[in-house]
Amino acid sequence: MTPPSASRRPTRLAEKSSTDRAALDALLDAGVVGHFGLVTEDGTPVVIPTAIVRDGDRVLAHGSTGSRWMRRLAQGVPTALAVTTYDGLVVARSAFESSLRYRSAVVFGACVVLPDTEKEHALDLVTDALIPGRVAEVRRPTKAELAATLVLALPLDDWSLKVSAGWPDDEPDDIAGPAWAGVVPLRQTYDDPLPAPDLAPGIGVPPSVAALGR
Amino acid sequence: MTPPSASRRPTRLAEKSSTDRAALDALLDAGVVGHFGLVTEDGTPVVIPTAIVRDGDRVLAHGSTGSRWMRRLAQGVPTALAVTTYDGLVVARSAFESSLRYRSAVVFGACVVLPDTEKEHALDLVTDALIPGRVAEVRRPTKAELAATLVLALPLDDWSLKVSAGWPDDEPDDIAGPAWAGVVPLRQTYDDPLPAPDLAPGIGVPPSVAALGR
Repeated sequence: MTPPSASRRPTRLAEKSSTDRAALDALLDAGVVGHFGLVTEDGTPVVIPTAIVRDGDRVLAHGSTGSRWMRRLAQGVPTALAVTTYDGLVVARSAFESSLRYRSAVVFGACVVLPDTEKEHALDLVTDALIPGRVAEVRRPTKAELAATLVLALPLDDWSLKVSAGWPDDEPDDIAGPAWAGVVPLRQTYDDPLPAPDLAPGIGVPPSVAALGR
Repeated sequence: MTPPSASRRPTRLAEKSSTDRAALDALLDAGVVGHFGLVTEDGTPVVIPTAIVRDGDRVLAHGSTGSRWMRRLAQGVPTALAVTTYDGLVVARSAFESSLRYRSAVVFGACVVLPDTEKEHALDLVTDALIPGRVAEVRRPTKAELAATLVLALPLDDWSLKVSAGWPDDEPDDIAGPAWAGVVPLRQTYDDPLPAPDLAPGIGVPPSVAALGR
């Protein structure tokens, strides 16, 4: 486990900061979408949302070789990748103490481009992270598809993690008052799968899709 | 409606780009957490997740006056605010064509600090956006609470929007094959409220909390 560098440690709510690598991994494995921050040529910031998957001690992201921002990340410019889950409402007795349950990680560093020899395996990881078991149900990617895809890896060397999983922390006067306090947990659930308009009759929902969210 | 500036227009998947201000507003109203990107003193990027609420032609965010990044945003440095919702899986017949249903906006600009005269109303908007009706159930913020809170506003002048709400777009060979294709919609749902450990007996769940997700 590598602790976050001092300059990047969260400055507020230090009680919520964590150097727990297992908790970082759990968040990265739960988060589907990450936000890459980078600095453009003119010095202004841009933020790019993209699907991410953890692969051991690195995070993988993929995109088109035609994407301007993917290409800039591929050059190894400094980046910050934020992965956040919103897990519920902390309903305090005052608006001031009310907040969110969340998990938030930021990984600092620079991306490297995966070589062609690692690309196909990495894309399998992306697919099976989103839909476990799907890789075994579909054809292999073609050479043209692989050539059109850029896969980036960001090492988990320098990161910070904040976890808010607690209860309202009201002042004594408010606790003695009449207002309710508690937590409302939030959950993401998949609805029933919808067949594509061009799906041929008789093709049933595959096991990977049927198992989602079960 | 102000279209995004040319330099910031999405470079890929142009068919998914939108200049529809109503669609932007719908996304900002649905998204609870946004990600602010900014450039630090040493020229490297950082990304800050925070609760956001739309207030007409601007987005509001709040935080502690002690937060380093909130204070930097308050100085009016260039920022990019990304708001993304992940709405489902697009399960194509190939891994390559599989993707996500999502809505993604990035707002470019600089934040301004709301004056004290606007702060209390802005914080009410934040609270009622998260829990509609909650403001009427809790006490007013104290002067000390207001003084400890920074409220930032980012104008909706320069923004880009991408919406992916479609179906798998497979190659003819794949459509003729045996693989399933479709969409699995994703939904966020609130679970039943949990009372705080220090809640006094006899205080029931208030209407605002009972109505969440119903």
